[in-house]
Amino acid sequence: MANTNFNTDFTPLTVDPDKIYDYSFSIIDEEMGEHSFSEDQWKVVRRIIHASADFELGRSVLITPDAIEAGIRAILNGRHVIADVQMIQSGSGQKRFQKHGGDLHCYIADSDVSAEAKKLGTTRAIISMQKAVRKHVGGIYAIGNAPTALLELIRLIKEGVAKPDLIIGMPVGFVSAAESKEELAKLEGIPYITNVGRKGGSTVTVAALNAISLLADERAKEIK
Amino acid sequence: MANTNFNTDFTPLTVDPDKIYDYSFSIIDEEMGEHSFSEDQWKVVRRIIHASADFELGRSVLITPDAIEAGIRAILNGRHVIADVQMIQSGSGQKRFQKHGGDLHCYIADSDVSAEAKKLGTTRAIISMQKAVRKHVGGIYAIGNAPTALLELIRLIKEGVAKPDLIIGMPVGFVSAAESKEELAKLEGIPYITNVGRKGGSTVTVAALNAISLLADERAKEIK
Repeated sequence: MANTNFNTDFTPLTVDPDKIYDYSFSIIDEEMGEHSFSEDQWKVVRRIIHASADFELGRSVLITPDAIEAGIRAILNGRHVIADVQMIQSGSGQKRFQKHGGDLHCYIADSDVSAEAKKLGTTRAIISMQKAVRKHVGGIYAIGNAPTALLELIRLIKEGVAKPDLIIGMPVGFVSAAESKEELAKLEGIPYITNVGRKGGSTVTVAALNAISLLADERAKEIK
Repeated sequence: MANTNFNTDFTPLTVDPDKIYDYSFSIIDEEMGEHSFSEDQWKVVRRIIHASADFELGRSVLITPDAIEAGIRAILNGRHVIADVQMIQSGSGQKRFQKHGGDLHCYIADSDVSAEAKKLGTTRAIISMQKAVRKHVGGIYAIGNAPTALLELIRLIKEGVAKPDLIIGMPVGFVSAAESKEELAKLEGIPYITNVGRKGGSTVTVAALNAISLLADERAKEIK
């Protein structure tokens, strides 16, 4: 009969979460070999590889020179973080931003967003970005699923109604995903983290967001 | 100034969500070429490729001959679905199971789980599987993140305290992920969906779970 006294008899298996991370990172460092990412960029890319077990995806990452610093500063200044899908919200968690005064929002499941998308015959992702920008002209935009969300955000930036502190734009897929990231990489004056090609997704977007948030925590400790 | 009347002027961009799916699937069908998956298995694998843009990952998928039917029947019989991480719970959504009488649970963030994991110096993933099995001997177990969760579930099956209707086991990573899936593939008498190697993750686990749930919906319509 099942009870609370199961033996967790995995002697040969590492079950210490910190050790699992350290061991994973040492494997990734070793297998990655040569690369041209800076030390801080590698902290982001390594977590992307950790979340995907995909070195090809890791090597396809593009990070503007100002992106990591912009992300750290945004979090420490309590700027808000906007995710395109709820998987990112639950995967990253709101607590890591709330402790610095900001929060992590996702509007795609809001009833007014669905209603408007239905009325206009468009995606909820597009309408949710419009709602997000009305609430947060700046902040960190983390888009890991919907190319239409990223394209809409880029359009709103070009129209002058959005000015994110940082965009993490890594939507995945076969229709417009690679193209949306090409458009992002053409933007000037907006710090971004993205990647080349079809691959991406919520888990790697969470990995990048969490990497930035951990760097912000380190910075907060240094300041104290 | 931002307002509700943004033009969504993406004339060349497909923004009809159903059309985006259809178009994506036709690209995947074409680029995949020859494979040995059955028609129903392909419906699962195609969604995994759709969520990852990764044909290599798609080709690494293993599905037992009874897995899809077992999953459909479990959902239609209102059996519960257990996810190892909250990203799977939010990505798949509880509604799709509640309408058939079941529900989608995730115990990893429960305070009793954290407390016990801390006390025993082990992972929350392991303790959350023990809690899940005490509540649900059967049901669908969807594990996309933690190898230790999958290994613990396999141990509980071997001890005779767990007997899932279906395991979707696709944890990702560098420490024990591939090994945990090898162990799953050795199990006899338990239907499973898994893959070979380090790749996997919450998004592809959600894709497989949603594919099964959509097949269950189709079956429910046929029965009516």
